[in-house]
Amino acid sequence: MGNTMQFVPGLEGVVAVETGISFLDTVESEIVLKGYDLIELSKSKGYLDIVHLLMEGSLPNEAEKKALEESLKKNYHVPEAVMEMIKLLPESTHPMDALRTGVSALSGYDKDILDRSHESNLNRAYHLLGNVPNIVANSYHILNGEETVEPRQDLSYSANFLYMITGKVPSEMEERIFDRSLVLYSEHELPNSTFTARVIASTLSDLYGALTGAVASLKGHLHGGANEAVMEMLKEAGTVEKFEELLYTKLKNKEKVMGFGHRVYMKKMDPRALMMKEALKELSEAKGDNTLFEMCEVGEKIMAQEKGLFPNLDYYAAPVYWMLGIPIPLYTPIFFSSRTAGLSAHVMEQHENNRLFRPRVNYRGPRGLHPND
Amino acid sequence: MGNTMQFVPGLEGVVAVETGISFLDTVESEIVLKGYDLIELSKSKGYLDIVHLLMEGSLPNEAEKKALEESLKKNYHVPEAVMEMIKLLPESTHPMDALRTGVSALSGYDKDILDRSHESNLNRAYHLLGNVPNIVANSYHILNGEETVEPRQDLSYSANFLYMITGKVPSEMEERIFDRSLVLYSEHELPNSTFTARVIASTLSDLYGALTGAVASLKGHLHGGANEAVMEMLKEAGTVEKFEELLYTKLKNKEKVMGFGHRVYMKKMDPRALMMKEALKELSEAKGDNTLFEMCEVGEKIMAQEKGLFPNLDYYAAPVYWMLGIPIPLYTPIFFSSRTAGLSAHVMEQHENNRLFRPRVNYRGPRGLHPND
Repeated sequence: MGNTMQFVPGLEGVVAVETGISFLDTVESEIVLKGYDLIELSKSKGYLDIVHLLMEGSLPNEAEKKALEESLKKNYHVPEAVMEMIKLLPESTHPMDALRTGVSALSGYDKDILDRSHESNLNRAYHLLGNVPNIVANSYHILNGEETVEPRQDLSYSANFLYMITGKVPSEMEERIFDRSLVLYSEHELPNSTFTARVIASTLSDLYGALTGAVASLKGHLHGGANEAVMEMLKEAGTVEKFEELLYTKLKNKEKVMGFGHRVYMKKMDPRALMMKEALKELSEAKGDNTLFEMCEVGEKIMAQEKGLFPNLDYYAAPVYWMLGIPIPLYTPIFFSSRTAGLSAHVMEQHENNRLFRPRVNYRGPRGLHPND
Repeated sequence: MGNTMQFVPGLEGVVAVETGISFLDTVESEIVLKGYDLIELSKSKGYLDIVHLLMEGSLPNEAEKKALEESLKKNYHVPEAVMEMIKLLPESTHPMDALRTGVSALSGYDKDILDRSHESNLNRAYHLLGNVPNIVANSYHILNGEETVEPRQDLSYSANFLYMITGKVPSEMEERIFDRSLVLYSEHELPNSTFTARVIASTLSDLYGALTGAVASLKGHLHGGANEAVMEMLKEAGTVEKFEELLYTKLKNKEKVMGFGHRVYMKKMDPRALMMKEALKELSEAKGDNTLFEMCEVGEKIMAQEKGLFPNLDYYAAPVYWMLGIPIPLYTPIFFSSRTAGLSAHVMEQHENNRLFRPRVNYRGPRGLHPND
């Protein structure tokens, strides 16, 4: 009985989507974003350039970039009732769960919730790009009994985001490095969270719902939680010697070491990790503390030697966020916040050329049972 | 450039999951549930039997069924703060969005949220099976400015659910028919919402997150919204003659008629629809009003003649829910509530034999662009 089609665990290698948004070219070692190399982009362009590229289809000129920034700033305000809802959550709520609940609640404020047109989706995406950093930063403050921090219109998008998290206006270097991390996290082909968003969107459900699902996906420790796990590991070790010891113990016990390897890159260092490694070096020199940088380099060597595995973005983004003064439980919410751009682009693309996702199963259970036997 | 793997739109025909839970056998015309024929089950077993079958792996004896009912009743209480959150949602919030926000918020009350063991997932599933009907019924009351209805421990699970919705204790016939509709909606292989839940769960994210994503999926009008669309159509027409007219107009304008056809069944009537058709006949006779039954039969004939399409479950569940006095916006939330059993079983199966879902794309955009050209 049952089905005779071939089962592909995890859909590995199955092409589930045709897209003009991005592509991990493992042959050419390039993360392609709308025709550009993401790494090349990250060296001369900022997060708002990438948002414009993903949302409007082109890199902006100065006037377009200014207009985009204004449009995001107009969307900084989160409805008071949504903040009140977050205040009602039990203190033990995971920050990703607070974010999931907050994003879900936003849909009730959308007057055109049934409209799936490009323009309506675009407005929705800008609404989310404006709201999400505020929800991320302030749900953390609320759950930790801290004062909330109002967004500041006089700061850049990324500087304001970092300011809402730490309560301090960042230096030029901190702002630039944080902005770069957002660029690197902005879009990455079809990871589980993006796939989740497209699967949900394919029922013609709305952007809020698709992104709520993506938050749920990104929370899983096989996906977005990795940057937090990396930092917990570095913090637990504290010194180069103890980190070496910890890694060898993990390897001996055949435990997974977070921050290494990637289903798609395989035997190569994630080029985004290299950008964050450079940022970590710059921050370490400026702050006169090389401990984390040295630990990470040693870890990189051990994992290459012992397992042939190379760092992914999370491995170097984690200590960068630590040195920027960001609390560890916010690393994954920040990842989501940055990815809001890519996710929105994918949902829009799905709505504009849709086919409902509805795969099949191979049934491996019993047959022929009867309830009254 | 790009990828050369074959793109399968909507993953149609792709086997994404191996399962022992259920299977749509289109050759034998059987919906297999843990070895049983769902239609045969629905004739002699109730919703709690199905819950036991899905959660515990076997049909219960009387003592087991009683114990299950007690365990669900212990979970009827929704945290007051979650109800307060729903009161804060704008009135314009879609009932599925209120449900999505409510399910998302529940995770903060789970003391073992990081535990992915079978037992912990099972407790979580019972928690949701107890809470969801309460959230469904009372979020509707709240959004419509009505008094909330407290669950009643002296009624059966299904009678209490219907009571919380209508505020009236149902008759024996109403209870039996509503319970049967829950049986028929309880599980159905791998529709988009179940696939969504499994994709999310494959990151090792938790049951609340996976089910939050499933609510978002089910909201889409290509999926769960169909039963509501059917009833709106029947209500708009009001008489057999006008319904005929409406259908012919829709067919002439090449508009999709909701409630007909199914990606997997193809050229056959959904056997679940037949069960609800019988229930509609019984309700119509008892209430002495055959209008809806006659309209549905005429619609069935027209669609078979003109398009070769047959009714699916939604087509006959919609008028049944109408005759049970259930407000139309609750049809999809009830579908979700019933499916909580199947969804939980799938998430548990995914966690117990996991492989992260991470398919690929075919890239169809430009290449070789440079930011400073």
